[in-house]
Amino acid sequence: MSEKLRELRHRLQEIDDLRAVYNLLNWDQQTHMPVGGAEARGRESALVARLEHEKFTDPEMGRLLDSLVHLEQERDYDDDDASLVRVTRRLYEHATRFPTAFWSHLFEHSSRTYEAWARARAEGDFSLVREHLEVTLELSLELAEFNRPWEHVMDGLTWDREYGTTASQVRRLFGELVDGIVPLVKEIAERPAPDDSFLRATWPRQEQLAFAADVVRDLGYDFDRGRLDTTRHPFASRLSRGDVRITTRVNEGDLRECLFSAIHEAGHAMYEQGVAENLAGTPLSRRGASHGMHESQSRLWENLVGRSKGFWEHRFSALRDAFPEQLAGVDAHTFYRAINRVEPGTIRLFADELTYNLHMIIRTELELDLLEGALAIRDLEEAWNAKYEAYLGVRPASASEGVLQDVHWYGGTIVLPAIIGGAFQGYALGNLIGAQLYAAAASERPALDEDIAAGRFEWLHGWLTEKVYRHGRKYLAPELVERATGSELSTAPYLAYVRRKFGEIYDIRV
Amino acid sequence: MSEKLRELRHRLQEIDDLRAVYNLLNWDQQTHMPVGGAEARGRESALVARLEHEKFTDPEMGRLLDSLVHLEQERDYDDDDASLVRVTRRLYEHATRFPTAFWSHLFEHSSRTYEAWARARAEGDFSLVREHLEVTLELSLELAEFNRPWEHVMDGLTWDREYGTTASQVRRLFGELVDGIVPLVKEIAERPAPDDSFLRATWPRQEQLAFAADVVRDLGYDFDRGRLDTTRHPFASRLSRGDVRITTRVNEGDLRECLFSAIHEAGHAMYEQGVAENLAGTPLSRRGASHGMHESQSRLWENLVGRSKGFWEHRFSALRDAFPEQLAGVDAHTFYRAINRVEPGTIRLFADELTYNLHMIIRTELELDLLEGALAIRDLEEAWNAKYEAYLGVRPASASEGVLQDVHWYGGTIVLPAIIGGAFQGYALGNLIGAQLYAAAASERPALDEDIAAGRFEWLHGWLTEKVYRHGRKYLAPELVERATGSELSTAPYLAYVRRKFGEIYDIRV
Repeated sequence: MSEKLRELRHRLQEIDDLRAVYNLLNWDQQTHMPVGGAEARGRESALVARLEHEKFTDPEMGRLLDSLVHLEQERDYDDDDASLVRVTRRLYEHATRFPTAFWSHLFEHSSRTYEAWARARAEGDFSLVREHLEVTLELSLELAEFNRPWEHVMDGLTWDREYGTTASQVRRLFGELVDGIVPLVKEIAERPAPDDSFLRATWPRQEQLAFAADVVRDLGYDFDRGRLDTTRHPFASRLSRGDVRITTRVNEGDLRECLFSAIHEAGHAMYEQGVAENLAGTPLSRRGASHGMHESQSRLWENLVGRSKGFWEHRFSALRDAFPEQLAGVDAHTFYRAINRVEPGTIRLFADELTYNLHMIIRTELELDLLEGALAIRDLEEAWNAKYEAYLGVRPASASEGVLQDVHWYGGTIVLPAIIGGAFQGYALGNLIGAQLYAAAASERPALDEDIAAGRFEWLHGWLTEKVYRHGRKYLAPELVERATGSELSTAPYLAYVRRKFGEIYDIRV
Repeated sequence: MSEKLRELRHRLQEIDDLRAVYNLLNWDQQTHMPVGGAEARGRESALVARLEHEKFTDPEMGRLLDSLVHLEQERDYDDDDASLVRVTRRLYEHATRFPTAFWSHLFEHSSRTYEAWARARAEGDFSLVREHLEVTLELSLELAEFNRPWEHVMDGLTWDREYGTTASQVRRLFGELVDGIVPLVKEIAERPAPDDSFLRATWPRQEQLAFAADVVRDLGYDFDRGRLDTTRHPFASRLSRGDVRITTRVNEGDLRECLFSAIHEAGHAMYEQGVAENLAGTPLSRRGASHGMHESQSRLWENLVGRSKGFWEHRFSALRDAFPEQLAGVDAHTFYRAINRVEPGTIRLFADELTYNLHMIIRTELELDLLEGALAIRDLEEAWNAKYEAYLGVRPASASEGVLQDVHWYGGTIVLPAIIGGAFQGYALGNLIGAQLYAAAASERPALDEDIAAGRFEWLHGWLTEKVYRHGRKYLAPELVERATGSELSTAPYLAYVRRKFGEIYDIRV
């Protein structure tokens, strides 16, 4: 390894270690920290984030990257070192583009907006936050300008988490999804709903956690390099390659929350645990190819595996052993149908596997319209309601259940403060990618469904590690989809999957 | 506040926040971290420690302190800002004295010695590590040179943790302790031992932890600003003023470990929780006046309160409710006598309250002899054994139970790598300080023993907070002892305490 490359890796390792520290501060805050620690913890996290940022945007880092750019020409695209320089240069260029003053302004606006949103949501009155959101839109357009060149202003906002996937592709894919899903949901609404009344029992906390831990261990989540705790909002966090933690939430009135949140987060975590060791300590090791690609893994394991018929053919007897009274008289098929009940509603958080896409698509389409200037903030509430009526056949009773429902647009996320764009599309993209990957895996191994129905997940976990996980952030999501499946991202595998699955559950001929 | 002072406080706050982060990394490593996280955690901790050290030894810090030195003349000794400059200058001067090369050399020697010690202890052969220890002694003498001026070479090694207490004082105090304790232990050995056979029952883990948590909460440990976990080696850790965590260890075969470790660590933690808010974020807020002063608080709560007759008069019924079968037929007085059984032995870790002092004194006296040149490393093993025989009437069966017993001299501690001096004396000093503080409190409040016997600890906790805790590291230990008790540290209160307590238990007229 050249001296320059060694120095780059050394600097990146320190930055990566600071990120690990930052993630521990956050994990601890959400799991174990006593209330008295909050004030200091805010300072500590801000300090570590600042040190990380300072180290990454150090001009010496830029000079080092410039002196190594020749590797991108001399070596193969696939070469680890060439990829390291390529991806790190892209991140460095973006990180050094924004004037500090712009960020401070954005953060201040973000917290003011958050406060206004909290009031507006409590009162169900969108007008209380409307003017703030108009400024947010202006700031988003301004932010996108720093990230030129792009084809669509949205691309200037999604460069970090969806680099390589353009707004026009998203428009097209989501349009196809709407055309495929909306009629299916309408047909489902006309059929008798599966009985899920038995789910409303009491499911003791410790038994739920033990069952969830057993499931994620069997799927391939490595507890020697991770752990499972409970938090208000479940998440997965990569501290280091050997320490990727997950959390879940227990609701004693609903069996599904703890288990499916745990599987979801384990999907994210298996991605992070599977990144190749030689990428560790570099930006190529964290957060995967894209937000959509990361969601594809949480959703693949949660839905395509964890909510599949085969999975419960195998696992239901263990579940009944854990909860014999609650599940007396219930069989595997009844249970499978109950946890896959489709029920269009106004609230994203309560959405089932199928309608969840429409919640995401509505938000993304509205974002695109706003950014293109085709929709004004003053018309956003009505546009929201109209889309819910058109796609889901429901209408929010108030703005609190509608346009004010999610914090995302209102400065609630720390990563993307008060910026419209990119937070939602990844979830629906993830469903598409997950189904396309699963279909490719199944065509390579015809016995895959039998594996699942026998409780064997090693082959699938190995295939995903080989095709996706080990590459970390080395490739862009579209590159990875093409390498792993042999074709561009398409809606066909996903639509085929939901038609087959829900067609069978609801007895619909498709 | 002047601009300079504001800048000093700002810099110190960042350094203090980095210390909090370092402590979280360590706490997590010992409580929750999966095994796979170890390698990265080593790097993360080293990085954060380096950043903290760099910030503290920044020459700009020296200039800032120089520009504020006038406060020490202009203001009262008690003034917070004057004290901040005084103490920080002392720490800064020491931190900037050592050439980096010396530290690296020390660390390398330290890890080689540690490895040699592990082999030597396994084989019970002191000669395998003797030459390493000779180098350690040379390095210790060299290290002390950096810290001149001093009266005794030991003072050059204890500047950080026992500043203000000199080797000659320690010699004198420990001599008095030996004269007082050794005859008492001999008399005890001739009396019938209290029955403690019932302690060898099975004490379930969860019940032990719940009982220990209730006790430390009642003593005054604030769970809103802390938490209790289990680790292999119990400790207390101040992250921030609002987050001071403790750990304990559970042995299902011995009721005492979990409970008394928890009380011990809660004593340390109450000290840290009690430091005044205006000292937070500065070096005055951490680690108390000295190692001995800190140990005085763990030992006061553990022994003078937690192992007292009054405490168990009140608490025993709750203990019997928690463990009805194990304590069937046992009364409070029998229990009190059992947990205070005195039994001279060769192993420090198993020592009772009274003989523990002698273990510490033996080690400290040997250290002093070595540093003075009165004892050679080649004669250390025999000197150790002779002292055990003289003070405790026992002789180690092998070097593993003797001179190789503790890791301290062999580079096992990170804080004080391979340095002879100061690690042991604090424990015995702590016993003296604790007894003198308790006696002063009792003379101010004659009903203190009745408080304890009624389960009321607020007055004592408040008095200690007022006299000791709130001052943090502002005063030196001897200053604080004099302020709180009205006289210099003396062995009289401690010797009176142990004669009264053990005289009664063993029916000895004193």
